[in-house]
Amino acid sequence: MNAPALRPVDHVIAAARAFLGERITTNNAIREQHSHGEDSSTPVQPDAVAFVHTTEEVSKLLALCHRYEVPVTPWGAGTSLEGHVTPVRAGITLDLSKMDRILEVRPDDMDCLIEPGVERRALNDHLRDQGLFFPVDPGSHCTIGGMCATRASGTNAVRYGTIRENVLELEVVLADGRVIRTGGQTRKAANGYDLTRLFIGSEGTLGVMTKIRLRLHGIPEATSAAVCAFPDLASAVETVRTVIQSGIPVARIELLDADQMRASIRYSKLTGMAEAPTLFIEFHGSAAAVQEQAEAVQAIAADNGGADFAWATETEARNKLWTARHDAYWAGVSLIPGYRGITTDVCVPISKLVEAIVGAKAITEAAGQTTCIVGHAGDGNFHQVILYDPNDPHGLEKAWELDRKIVALGLSLGGTCSGEHGVGLGKREFLEQEHGVEALAVMRSIKQTLDPKGIMNPGKMFRN
Amino acid sequence: MNAPALRPVDHVIAAARAFLGERITTNNAIREQHSHGEDSSTPVQPDAVAFVHTTEEVSKLLALCHRYEVPVTPWGAGTSLEGHVTPVRAGITLDLSKMDRILEVRPDDMDCLIEPGVERRALNDHLRDQGLFFPVDPGSHCTIGGMCATRASGTNAVRYGTIRENVLELEVVLADGRVIRTGGQTRKAANGYDLTRLFIGSEGTLGVMTKIRLRLHGIPEATSAAVCAFPDLASAVETVRTVIQSGIPVARIELLDADQMRASIRYSKLTGMAEAPTLFIEFHGSAAAVQEQAEAVQAIAADNGGADFAWATETEARNKLWTARHDAYWAGVSLIPGYRGITTDVCVPISKLVEAIVGAKAITEAAGQTTCIVGHAGDGNFHQVILYDPNDPHGLEKAWELDRKIVALGLSLGGTCSGEHGVGLGKREFLEQEHGVEALAVMRSIKQTLDPKGIMNPGKMFRN
Repeated sequence: MNAPALRPVDHVIAAARAFLGERITTNNAIREQHSHGEDSSTPVQPDAVAFVHTTEEVSKLLALCHRYEVPVTPWGAGTSLEGHVTPVRAGITLDLSKMDRILEVRPDDMDCLIEPGVERRALNDHLRDQGLFFPVDPGSHCTIGGMCATRASGTNAVRYGTIRENVLELEVVLADGRVIRTGGQTRKAANGYDLTRLFIGSEGTLGVMTKIRLRLHGIPEATSAAVCAFPDLASAVETVRTVIQSGIPVARIELLDADQMRASIRYSKLTGMAEAPTLFIEFHGSAAAVQEQAEAVQAIAADNGGADFAWATETEARNKLWTARHDAYWAGVSLIPGYRGITTDVCVPISKLVEAIVGAKAITEAAGQTTCIVGHAGDGNFHQVILYDPNDPHGLEKAWELDRKIVALGLSLGGTCSGEHGVGLGKREFLEQEHGVEALAVMRSIKQTLDPKGIMNPGKMFRN
Repeated sequence: MNAPALRPVDHVIAAARAFLGERITTNNAIREQHSHGEDSSTPVQPDAVAFVHTTEEVSKLLALCHRYEVPVTPWGAGTSLEGHVTPVRAGITLDLSKMDRILEVRPDDMDCLIEPGVERRALNDHLRDQGLFFPVDPGSHCTIGGMCATRASGTNAVRYGTIRENVLELEVVLADGRVIRTGGQTRKAANGYDLTRLFIGSEGTLGVMTKIRLRLHGIPEATSAAVCAFPDLASAVETVRTVIQSGIPVARIELLDADQMRASIRYSKLTGMAEAPTLFIEFHGSAAAVQEQAEAVQAIAADNGGADFAWATETEARNKLWTARHDAYWAGVSLIPGYRGITTDVCVPISKLVEAIVGAKAITEAAGQTTCIVGHAGDGNFHQVILYDPNDPHGLEKAWELDRKIVALGLSLGGTCSGEHGVGLGKREFLEQEHGVEALAVMRSIKQTLDPKGIMNPGKMFRN
């Protein structure tokens, strides 16, 4: 009897052993670990996981995968909420978490060059002594590479922009193993196509980022945070809209609805807070500027029936507040023991935010489902955690059905299906509706040009 | 005898008459007008100029040009400094200046939807009553479409970003006449490839923008401007560097060297100012914030030997100042009667700005040539107007030679050949050097995908 014929992926694994040794593995536990992110998509195990250390290794591995037409799924910290890291066509998962060196910090230029596996929090720990910080903060323990791939933003984006505005330069390994540099070290440039922005948000479908130069910001002289409760959801959202339109440079302005507050008070032990629609707000600047901004926002809140600000001026109190905000998803999911959650990511023009949020809540109530709303309201972006019973065979399906209705409302208001989580598997069906057939065809043609064999994170972003 | 065979462009002109009538013209004076921008490239007349009024007309015309493989050169206001609007392979020049409608202003969302032929100043005149403004200000009488095409920035970019950060949505006609929408109405999105940023800065080589949604900003409560002279160039540049690194949100911080001041004092009648390296600075914010920023900058300037601030608080005085700044190029060219000028556009990391500017000045002196330096110093971007005698057969060549040396110095310091003017004809030779062969190959492959027949602004950005 003949031995079974080797699959293409077996050739890749065998050849990659030469330069990765034990760092390319078919170990079951590791493949299982890499079979899904933090979303509800069906887990799929890759054939092997490669823990790469250098650009050269990524390049050699991609060249092999290109040659044998083996799918490649890049992996950072596995915190995707939209199935980005699920290797739906198996193949090789490229784990970049060990490429976590901070290669250079240039305080004079307020930038740094890092590898993609650097975690956001580790970077800020490293920078603190130099009076600098990296502001983009999606809350999770994600890697900067993953943030670039999904065009992440988070709580500080309202003031400092999303990751799109905070990346200067990339090193990218293309699908066939070629290595390019995009962008540069300057703050601006008018020197050819903006390849940096093309790769940011491309969700691993065009290449693998192996170096990233980030803009940094000075730690503000003064920071102050406050919490403000409102009689109803619309008043809280109106407050956000007026603050943004007044041009007050708030650093963060986050909305939690009454259900989310109920969940977060319990989960994060937020004693003394009300189970009412609430804004968490942070101010950055000089001491005088922070005070001036805070007074202006307090006045707008009061006009909308907001309670007096409860201040969190000390670092510890602020950390507790933002940890609670970051844990909102987990707090929401914990509302019903044993339940799981999916989360929406609708973003609308700010003039439509009241309508979108109040409407989403009404749709949810009509469906008789439990959700919490938490949002980067200053950007018009909000998340609705939709709980479902994993033991109900139709539970997840019903949750997705509600998600679709909420997205449809968002799109009808000029919004997008994804403000920051990305498309992945979960939002593919909305892309054509949002962009139209021709724009999607342009995206596909770019994908075809840069990845003609379709090996880079196949199945993501596009439906086929 | 047979009549001469019709050229492809004649077919296009004849067919376009059906929907453009007299608005497609072969009139000599109009072709001459459209043979060059404000640069020194050799004028080339297009075969015809089409004054389009609608997206549909652009689409039909491009479909024709695509069919007959006729070059198309988009035209806004003809203010390019790098040969973008010179139709080097003749064909049709697409004059978009009549597509100048402001289609929508949404004060609540702080955005507007416009046609590409809208002039920057006209837009701001229109917005003023609503308390809004569009900050990106390259100084010239350019159109917003031209600004998008060249990834323009200008004096306010240090605070408000370049046009790249201030465009939300585009309607684009592709080379074959297909019409797509890119981006959307929301402040951020993670919903597919960033086609908006791909077209911004593509210099008319990928398609024609026919609608543009811009972010707007609130007119600041208080605005104040000041002028500060320094004993030498390095002290002025050091001041800028420290201001930026301190995170003081100056709205503009512009550098004029002693030669530029000499030129501008004469050209713009800036009485009472010194022929010394000088900063023009503007502050935006609340009254208190403006005062606080001004005091901080004044202290930094004083540390570097700067003179006391001369204030321009009234609108009229400020307008005079910024008009002088905007006319700097013309003031520089007027230094030697009868001479013409080319201008460099180097941008470097701010830590290298002193070295770049002082070095550029030294190279110039060694070459025995006359130049003025004026710069968006806060972004690390500066322009050097190199004067040449148009009657000297080697004059322009010598000016380019000096330009090349200054760019080479900039690149050696981690900079780019173009901070904001674009590549066009003038900077093509530097692109490969900056991006490397492989990244340039990626740009070319995208060009090939979106414009397979190479009809869109051929000869620009790429050397062949």
